[in-house]
Amino acid sequence: MEKFEVTVLGCGSALPTVKHNGSGMVVNIREKYFLVDCAEGTQVELRRNRIHLNRLFTVFISHLHGDHCFGLMGLISTLGLLGRTAPLHVYGPQDIDTLFQPLIDYHCNGMTYEVVFHPIDTHQNTCIYEDRSLQVFSIPLKHRIRCCGYYFKEKELSRHILKDAIEKYAIPISQINNVKAGLDFVMPNGDVIKNELITTPPTPARSFAYCSDTVFRPEIAEMMKGVDLLYHEATFAESEKQLCSKVYHSTAKQAAEIARLAGAKQLMLGHYSSRYDDESILLKEASEVFENTILAKEGLVVTV
Amino acid sequence: MEKFEVTVLGCGSALPTVKHNGSGMVVNIREKYFLVDCAEGTQVELRRNRIHLNRLFTVFISHLHGDHCFGLMGLISTLGLLGRTAPLHVYGPQDIDTLFQPLIDYHCNGMTYEVVFHPIDTHQNTCIYEDRSLQVFSIPLKHRIRCCGYYFKEKELSRHILKDAIEKYAIPISQINNVKAGLDFVMPNGDVIKNELITTPPTPARSFAYCSDTVFRPEIAEMMKGVDLLYHEATFAESEKQLCSKVYHSTAKQAAEIARLAGAKQLMLGHYSSRYDDESILLKEASEVFENTILAKEGLVVTV
Repeated sequence: MEKFEVTVLGCGSALPTVKHNGSGMVVNIREKYFLVDCAEGTQVELRRNRIHLNRLFTVFISHLHGDHCFGLMGLISTLGLLGRTAPLHVYGPQDIDTLFQPLIDYHCNGMTYEVVFHPIDTHQNTCIYEDRSLQVFSIPLKHRIRCCGYYFKEKELSRHILKDAIEKYAIPISQINNVKAGLDFVMPNGDVIKNELITTPPTPARSFAYCSDTVFRPEIAEMMKGVDLLYHEATFAESEKQLCSKVYHSTAKQAAEIARLAGAKQLMLGHYSSRYDDESILLKEASEVFENTILAKEGLVVTV
Repeated sequence: MEKFEVTVLGCGSALPTVKHNGSGMVVNIREKYFLVDCAEGTQVELRRNRIHLNRLFTVFISHLHGDHCFGLMGLISTLGLLGRTAPLHVYGPQDIDTLFQPLIDYHCNGMTYEVVFHPIDTHQNTCIYEDRSLQVFSIPLKHRIRCCGYYFKEKELSRHILKDAIEKYAIPISQINNVKAGLDFVMPNGDVIKNELITTPPTPARSFAYCSDTVFRPEIAEMMKGVDLLYHEATFAESEKQLCSKVYHSTAKQAAEIARLAGAKQLMLGHYSSRYDDESILLKEASEVFENTILAKEGLVVTV
C-alpha cells in the first residue's frame, strides 16, 4: 500500500523546552511531504528525522501563535540557501501573508524560489487544497485568535482489477481504467461481464485530521467522520478544566470526546502544557473515553 | 574571583543542523547574563545549559542574518509568557527596531515587560553600554550587511586592601574606598602611610571580544588590544579562501591572524560552514598562526 505516514516533530505548547518542541508534524502521503505547523526548531527536527527539506511540498499553519509558526522564517530562508526552485505554498489564517512577506523581503534577498501564501477563511469547513489523490479541508477551530484545523483525506481509490480476469476476458489496455472505475466490461461479441466479477473493492481511502489549538468544540466531529487518525490538542488534564476553557484549550478527556463523536479509529494527543513532567495522566483520562489513544512524542511515526 | 564566563549556545553558520545551531553565546559577568546573538533554537539551548531565562539582562545582536537573530522573537515571547517585568534591552544594527517591533506588536499582545531596542552605528568603535563594572564597545565588522562585533571589558578593579594593615593602622571604614582607589592613608597624627604598603595591585580587568560575521579585517585588532578571549568567526579553511572573501567571511587562519595582531590570550573559533564534518582542519590551520586556539562547541563553557 502506498505511504500515508505522520511524523511528529514537536508536541509541546507555548513554552518550548528541552523535552518538547512547539508544534510541527509532517504528513507523508505517497512521498509528497506536507508540513503542518512550524514552531521554532522545526527545520532541525526535519533533519533529525531524515526528511529532506527539499521534499517539502506544502505547508499548513494552524494559527499565528509563536509555538506554531516561529520556525517558518528559518525554514523559508534555509530552503532558499539550499537552492530550492519549486514554489512553496503556505496555507494559513488571514494575516499570514502580511506578517511574513515583509520578513521574506528583508531576509531573503535574491531567493531562488517563490513563497506563495494562501490565506484561508478559518470560519469555513471547505476544501482548500486538492491534487490527484488528496483533498485537504479546513476545520474551523475556536482559539484566542483565528485558528484552523486540517483534514487530509485521500480520494476514493480505484477498484483493483483481477489479473486473471484480464487474461480470461482479454481486456485491452484501453479499457483498464474504465473497469477500475467500476464500469462493466463489454466483450467484442457483446457479452457483458459484470464489474464485480473482474475487480475487488478499492483499498479504503485514508484520512488524518490535525486539530490544534482549540477549546472543546463538538461540532467539528461531523467534519471528519470516520477519520483514521485524529491529532487533537490536549493541553491540560481534567483538574485544569476551568483554566483550560478560559485560555481556549482542550483537556485530554475532551480530545477523546471529539474522537468518540467523530468515530475516529485512533487518537493522538499532544500540545502538552509544560507543567506535565509525565503525560501519562493525559493518556489515562483520554483512554477512559476513547480507548485507542496514544501520546504524541517527538520522532514518533504513525502509519495511517 | 568573580565570574566571567562564556557559554557557547551555537557555533554553526547559515544552515542549522543536528550538529550545530546558529550563533548564540552567553556572557556571564558577575551573575549578569548577556546574550550575544540569538539564532533559532537559542531559548532551548539556554534551558539545556540551565541558564534561567529570566536572568537574561541584555541582548546584543551582531547582524540581522537569520542565523544570528531568528530566535529573538521566540525568546522575547517566552520571556513574556514567563511573566518578566524588567525591561529587556536589545542592542543591534540599525533596522533592528523596525524589523522586530511590528512582530512584537503582533505576537505579544499584553506583554508584561518592555523590549527596548538600541540601534547602534555599526561603523563606529565606541562604548555602547556601561554599568558599574563593565563597558561594552562596538567593533565595526565588514560583512554583506551592517554587522557589529562586541568587546566586553571589565572596568579597572580597585586595589586589595590588606586586612593586617587595617588593624595595624586602625584605618576607619570611611577611608577604605579611598585606600582601595590608590590614595595614601593619613594617620590622625599626620603620618602618611604609602598606599603600596597597605594594598596589593588589583586583579587585572578581564575582557572578551565577539567578532562574527566578518571578512578578514586587521584594523579591528587595535580595538581589543590584549583581549583575554577572542571569539572570531572561522567559516572556512584556507582551501576556500577565495570563496570566503567573496561572501565576506574569514578563514580559520585569518581569525588566528587577528588574535595574533590583537595580542589576544586565547582564541575561540566558530561559525563553521556546514561542509566540515570535522572542524579539526580549522583548528590546525589557526593553531599554526596562533597557538592558544580552541574550537567552539555547543555547551562549552570558557572561564575568562
